[in-house]
Amino acid sequence: MSTAKTAEIAIFKRRESEARSYCRSIDAVFTSASGSELTDAEGRSYIDFLAGCSSLNYGHNDPDMKAALIDHIAGDGMAHALDLHTDAKGAFMEAFEAHILKPRDMDHRLMFTGPTGANAVEAALKIARKVTGRTNVIAFTNGFHGVTLGALAATGNSYHRGGAGTTLNGVTRMPYDGYMGKSVDTADLLEKMLDDRSSGVDAPAAILLETVQGEGGLTAARPEWVRRVAELARKHGALLIIDDIQAGCGRTGRFFSFEEMGVTPDIVTMAKSISGFGLPMALMLVRPKHDVFGPAEHNGTFRGNTHAFVTAKVAIEKFWADDTFQTGLDKQSLALTAALEELAALIPGAFLKGRGLMQGVDVGSGELAGDICARAFRKGLIVETSGPDDQVVKILAPLTTPPEVMTKGLNILLDAARDVAHQTKFAAE
Amino acid sequence: MSTAKTAEIAIFKRRESEARSYCRSIDAVFTSASGSELTDAEGRSYIDFLAGCSSLNYGHNDPDMKAALIDHIAGDGMAHALDLHTDAKGAFMEAFEAHILKPRDMDHRLMFTGPTGANAVEAALKIARKVTGRTNVIAFTNGFHGVTLGALAATGNSYHRGGAGTTLNGVTRMPYDGYMGKSVDTADLLEKMLDDRSSGVDAPAAILLETVQGEGGLTAARPEWVRRVAELARKHGALLIIDDIQAGCGRTGRFFSFEEMGVTPDIVTMAKSISGFGLPMALMLVRPKHDVFGPAEHNGTFRGNTHAFVTAKVAIEKFWADDTFQTGLDKQSLALTAALEELAALIPGAFLKGRGLMQGVDVGSGELAGDICARAFRKGLIVETSGPDDQVVKILAPLTTPPEVMTKGLNILLDAARDVAHQTKFAAE
Amino acid sequence: MSTAKTAEIAIFKRRESEARSYCRSIDAVFTSASGSELTDAEGRSYIDFLAGCSSLNYGHNDPDMKAALIDHIAGDGMAHALDLHTDAKGAFMEAFEAHILKPRDMDHRLMFTGPTGANAVEAALKIARKVTGRTNVIAFTNGFHGVTLGALAATGNSYHRGGAGTTLNGVTRMPYDGYMGKSVDTADLLEKMLDDRSSGVDAPAAILLETVQGEGGLTAARPEWVRRVAELARKHGALLIIDDIQAGCGRTGRFFSFEEMGVTPDIVTMAKSISGFGLPMALMLVRPKHDVFGPAEHNGTFRGNTHAFVTAKVAIEKFWADDTFQTGLDKQSLALTAALEELAALIPGAFLKGRGLMQGVDVGSGELAGDICARAFRKGLIVETSGPDDQVVKILAPLTTPPEVMTKGLNILLDAARDVAHQTKFAAE
Amino acid sequence: MSTAKTAEIAIFKRRESEARSYCRSIDAVFTSASGSELTDAEGRSYIDFLAGCSSLNYGHNDPDMKAALIDHIAGDGMAHALDLHTDAKGAFMEAFEAHILKPRDMDHRLMFTGPTGANAVEAALKIARKVTGRTNVIAFTNGFHGVTLGALAATGNSYHRGGAGTTLNGVTRMPYDGYMGKSVDTADLLEKMLDDRSSGVDAPAAILLETVQGEGGLTAARPEWVRRVAELARKHGALLIIDDIQAGCGRTGRFFSFEEMGVTPDIVTMAKSISGFGLPMALMLVRPKHDVFGPAEHNGTFRGNTHAFVTAKVAIEKFWADDTFQTGLDKQSLALTAALEELAALIPGAFLKGRGLMQGVDVGSGELAGDICARAFRKGLIVETSGPDDQVVKILAPLTTPPEVMTKGLNILLDAARDVAHQTKFAAE
Repeated sequence: MSTAKTAEIAIFKRRESEARSYCRSIDAVFTSASGSELTDAEGRSYIDFLAGCSSLNYGHNDPDMKAALIDHIAGDGMAHALDLHTDAKGAFMEAFEAHILKPRDMDHRLMFTGPTGANAVEAALKIARKVTGRTNVIAFTNGFHGVTLGALAATGNSYHRGGAGTTLNGVTRMPYDGYMGKSVDTADLLEKMLDDRSSGVDAPAAILLETVQGEGGLTAARPEWVRRVAELARKHGALLIIDDIQAGCGRTGRFFSFEEMGVTPDIVTMAKSISGFGLPMALMLVRPKHDVFGPAEHNGTFRGNTHAFVTAKVAIEKFWADDTFQTGLDKQSLALTAALEELAALIPGAFLKGRGLMQGVDVGSGELAGDICARAFRKGLIVETSGPDDQVVKILAPLTTPPEVMTKGLNILLDAARDVAHQTKFAAE
Repeated sequence: MSTAKTAEIAIFKRRESEARSYCRSIDAVFTSASGSELTDAEGRSYIDFLAGCSSLNYGHNDPDMKAALIDHIAGDGMAHALDLHTDAKGAFMEAFEAHILKPRDMDHRLMFTGPTGANAVEAALKIARKVTGRTNVIAFTNGFHGVTLGALAATGNSYHRGGAGTTLNGVTRMPYDGYMGKSVDTADLLEKMLDDRSSGVDAPAAILLETVQGEGGLTAARPEWVRRVAELARKHGALLIIDDIQAGCGRTGRFFSFEEMGVTPDIVTMAKSISGFGLPMALMLVRPKHDVFGPAEHNGTFRGNTHAFVTAKVAIEKFWADDTFQTGLDKQSLALTAALEELAALIPGAFLKGRGLMQGVDVGSGELAGDICARAFRKGLIVETSGPDDQVVKILAPLTTPPEVMTKGLNILLDAARDVAHQTKFAAE
Repeated sequence: MSTAKTAEIAIFKRRESEARSYCRSIDAVFTSASGSELTDAEGRSYIDFLAGCSSLNYGHNDPDMKAALIDHIAGDGMAHALDLHTDAKGAFMEAFEAHILKPRDMDHRLMFTGPTGANAVEAALKIARKVTGRTNVIAFTNGFHGVTLGALAATGNSYHRGGAGTTLNGVTRMPYDGYMGKSVDTADLLEKMLDDRSSGVDAPAAILLETVQGEGGLTAARPEWVRRVAELARKHGALLIIDDIQAGCGRTGRFFSFEEMGVTPDIVTMAKSISGFGLPMALMLVRPKHDVFGPAEHNGTFRGNTHAFVTAKVAIEKFWADDTFQTGLDKQSLALTAALEELAALIPGAFLKGRGLMQGVDVGSGELAGDICARAFRKGLIVETSGPDDQVVKILAPLTTPPEVMTKGLNILLDAARDVAHQTKFAAE
Repeated sequence: MSTAKTAEIAIFKRRESEARSYCRSIDAVFTSASGSELTDAEGRSYIDFLAGCSSLNYGHNDPDMKAALIDHIAGDGMAHALDLHTDAKGAFMEAFEAHILKPRDMDHRLMFTGPTGANAVEAALKIARKVTGRTNVIAFTNGFHGVTLGALAATGNSYHRGGAGTTLNGVTRMPYDGYMGKSVDTADLLEKMLDDRSSGVDAPAAILLETVQGEGGLTAARPEWVRRVAELARKHGALLIIDDIQAGCGRTGRFFSFEEMGVTPDIVTMAKSISGFGLPMALMLVRPKHDVFGPAEHNGTFRGNTHAFVTAKVAIEKFWADDTFQTGLDKQSLALTAALEELAALIPGAFLKGRGLMQGVDVGSGELAGDICARAFRKGLIVETSGPDDQVVKILAPLTTPPEVMTKGLNILLDAARDVAHQTKFAAE
């Protein structure tokens, strides 16, 4: 490590908590970013296939959002407004209604929760419990919904659960689609347990799921499974909550990950890319009949991050006012699949996971996947792993990545995989 | 309501959740803000004695922070960076170490949690439980620590607790300083219960308190009580967590509310004004020996809100590099006390609460306090209530409010109080 | 109802809680009992195929136990002795060691818990949690383990769970053997969830199961499934607890229900027939290495019901000192199966459940099963239902029932079933 | 230890769980008992001032109960009857109604729970939660209510709580009468916390208390405190549960410990001496309007211990049909106080605790109290300690103890105390 760099990162070693994580393997000090590329303090640039874990679906510093935000700040627009009415919030809501909700026949209301995904999940669980008067929530194997105590109870990962320091209650765990192999439809088990008055599964307030498990290893549920779960929720008086925090905002190729599945969730949680610019913002969509919180019953100081409303409005209007953007995603998605098939072919037993622009390759071990990502980083690509054993190389490039940058990034990844495959083979011999 | 205004707020009525709150009584649509003043869509201006519930201690759109933020954005500085190293984060940390921690002999590390106060509290409770291997946390009557499930268990307010939808566990409630009147030191009860092996109070992981209860009615603890609680925590192997989310960042007249009390908390939670600009940011300060989270054990997408780091650095350097600002606060605080004494004299039985620039008047009933605030709003002042029955008129003006604006605002408040007092008297006759 | 009878039961209507249950459908007032027969206040006698829900495996008032108990009382033997040493307790322990534990190579220690099955289960869960330092317990669909709060969390029945009045925590529910049909081995799911670090199933302190689910509908687990579960428990550091409260003491044809399955539970809970005479007594067997309670850490006033020790010793010595009794059970069991097949043939779709002397017929609906039992009662046979919908007619005759009484009882049951079948057919036509 | 005795107790060392307790310090093997005296296997006799922890208020093997029980057994009376109607149960209920409930104007119904005190407490908490739809229960410092999970949450002792192995939820702990010294009425704190909507104490389902804390150190509540608590319960819609398991059945000088206090509990829990003979039996008394369990919603196999009903009926009729017995208790109580004052005078700082025939001396340390009891045992008296630090020598002699036996026992105790006092003084010099 250069002396300059050592000096730059000394403050982090000295004063930042051991909880820091990504910066351990990706140990540059980043200074600027544009589109799908990052630059560090030493002037080196990187292609970004992590995109803030899907928080930067439109890339870094989108010029239109940037301009709107600078204008807003320069004009002394509101920054912080609690849950007061502001022009910026109103304009976002108008855009979201016009371009997202109405075209999809969704009558949902918007609740601006504290600006983290976990907070939206906490609000969703609370409102579902209030609506139904029940406490049990059904969540699935390998689900990830945040690490505050209410959300963490629904999260599957044992490392995160272990951090709770107390018991995590109120959630029944059920196997996600495909968990028991192709011959078993896990919705059968859910149905039987819900129908059986002696199963020990208390009547649920909600069924909570991701249609693609972003942290859990990019497992994608089949639409027919999601439909059956939705029907079971309805039959048993439970609310269907789709956590679209990572898979939403176009990541799977549509604005919502559940579009074209034939389900209307009672509640949708959103965060990550909803501001468009990577600014903290979270949203809970809830059907009017379930909008039962009293004033400030669930509150939070930063529920009115007005800067985020400014960029979020631009994002909606720029990308979702017509089909152009979405159509492009379909093409990109096919290209990504093709490249990843090439990658999978390099690693014996590797196979593809995911859907849309949220795909990856399960390479069989966390060590292997980590090695590929580490080599890619050294070659100028930022990419990360996912899954219970971190065994999936996960691609979360900005959806706006130009084809040539995409190709360049995928080539780096393939190079890294080839190095690893070669070395592994060599070691085996 | 004017037709224009009706149109402006239609979207909120149509699509915003019933959870919205402040906007119900303060029903303007705000468009810009500067210093201690807000402007609405109809061009009307308001003095702001709410300040984002103490999130805008340095006022709206501070020119230096604004300039730095625009520069950062214009130069394609990072917006979102997970927990990667960035120059902006490093610079904030250097400033915080140099101007806040070192002068106060604090060796604490910084953990950037999800950018809400509740998230910092959740992290604090988790780490305290991990450090001690215990689950019980002692919190106090009228404490407010957030509404996500872990934090909500420590919050006293029954309205918020009722929103949990499930049982809130792991917290023992003890009476705050002064709760049993002047003749009883509630620390005696805490001591007896902790010493008694059969009291039913399990050995605590932490004792969590605010030195001034911002939401709970502006009750301020005596320094000697805080010291006794700190000693009891140490004696019983519990961590002392001071929740400085509302009372910190200069609000009580010093950067931390516990300065000059002779205690060193094991953990401090911060949020609200820490970014300086009202941007979402939260911080947990933890002593190195208790910094036991593993990498990402407590994580969150927006823990790297780089825009907030940019403004936070300016805030620290501008206001806390020397004593000038702090000295001014002492004077302001005296002036505020004087004005509030005048107000209290108008209402039979009313009395002052709070400390520093976090003072208010308990007028005896929520109805009365709400009436005063509503009249003040119509006269151009935004001010809110606090306390279990909302019976305290609470002043949280920006700390940077110019004397003439402060006087103008306080005069409006006095006018409003006089109207109410007059009408009440009239009604009584 | 006769006037005499009305008078007899008036006190129950006037002063007994609504929680009373069996006496609602079986509304006689019983005065004496011997062997497998009961007599009521009006002199009517009944054959008993309920046997105190398997608490009277050796029949009512066994002459040898009766003589020993009368001798003990007449000689001023101890009645209540807390957990002091008594000759009666020592003698029972010697007999239990010699005739039960030693021949089965079991090194378990005996803990006399409060004299209810639920109390033994509570003790078992507590000790398993203490041994492992974990809280999660795996229990199964349709399991029944008692209704005190710790045990109730493991019980599957929603009616009983609903009585908790608070959340039931610390238990993960898994499908019992056969729950997903013959093509799915539910141990596969258990294995996958325990192996998967992101399944959301926390590392278990214990796996708790009945080998035949007495209340849950007489579902019997296959030995190979029990073995796999035992291996999974061992592999994952969890204790295997077999709840033999209803299925133990010879009910399945062996003293323990898990004999000949090739498993050695870490903990066995016993109650019901362990005293031999129907007196309150419960027992937790625990392997020495897991015997970690401190003195009185789990205590209870009646853990020394000395009368029960007196009869329990006689029961062990009379029935289990050699193979005679057990051999007879095999024959009885075959005869019972044959009779129940005859019964099942009367009801379209009916099928046999259970194992040994714990068999029944699932007649498809609770209404039908209840009707059969009600008719049987009017004909002089006491028999009850089981299962999530009370759809199983369950035979729990004393194991000592003479063949002619057994035949008589089964004939009454067949008559009752024929009446119902006839009427149902008639109604259908 | 004699060889014979070593042989006798070998089985306990070999096969009884480490949870055994009283037998460690009182290491005889008891063989018979009559009235207030016990005999061990070596023919030694002991005076019993422990009385099964108040389970033997009428002494061992009362001749009338003994005769009735032998008659019942000899005549093939029922032993076990689930919750079926039996003549024995009906007769007990008639006696209890006539001699206990009616004279005290109590309209309560009887629920025969599983035959342990903890089970009655579990039932009481469940029914209170069901009645109110609330979960929180208020219990007091140093309260003891049993060790099953629901009851244990209400128990104060940290040693027992530590055995839970999981979190104990749903209980708010408040200071018992006198806990903060004579100058503070702890009911003031309870009132303030219940009235304060932001205290963090959720609206309670029940307030649960003992009027004399049997295990907690014989602290007796003042009648006026109990009345205030009862009024607070009523005002706040909570049920008042008096746990009379140890203090009931005459122990304080009246049948119920709360008689003459001017309160009518909504629920009373009873066990220990209710059978009269030391047999397992528990009872929950509940006012008809709160008798809301469904059939078998709270159930248990041994809720019909018919032997216990037989002796319980004799106990009620023999001792409570008129005032003779009760009047005698008043005299005994005075004599006990006098003797204990003599004892207290021997130990510097010692003072009396308790009420009625449930008195003791706080000698300041558990070591001292244990030493006195150990010496007393060697002199032929069985007596035990109580309190958070076992610092109270507790007298629980049978209420039927003849004056000369009482005097003899107290003299032994005084001798033991003198030895200890002498030795302590000697050591100090």
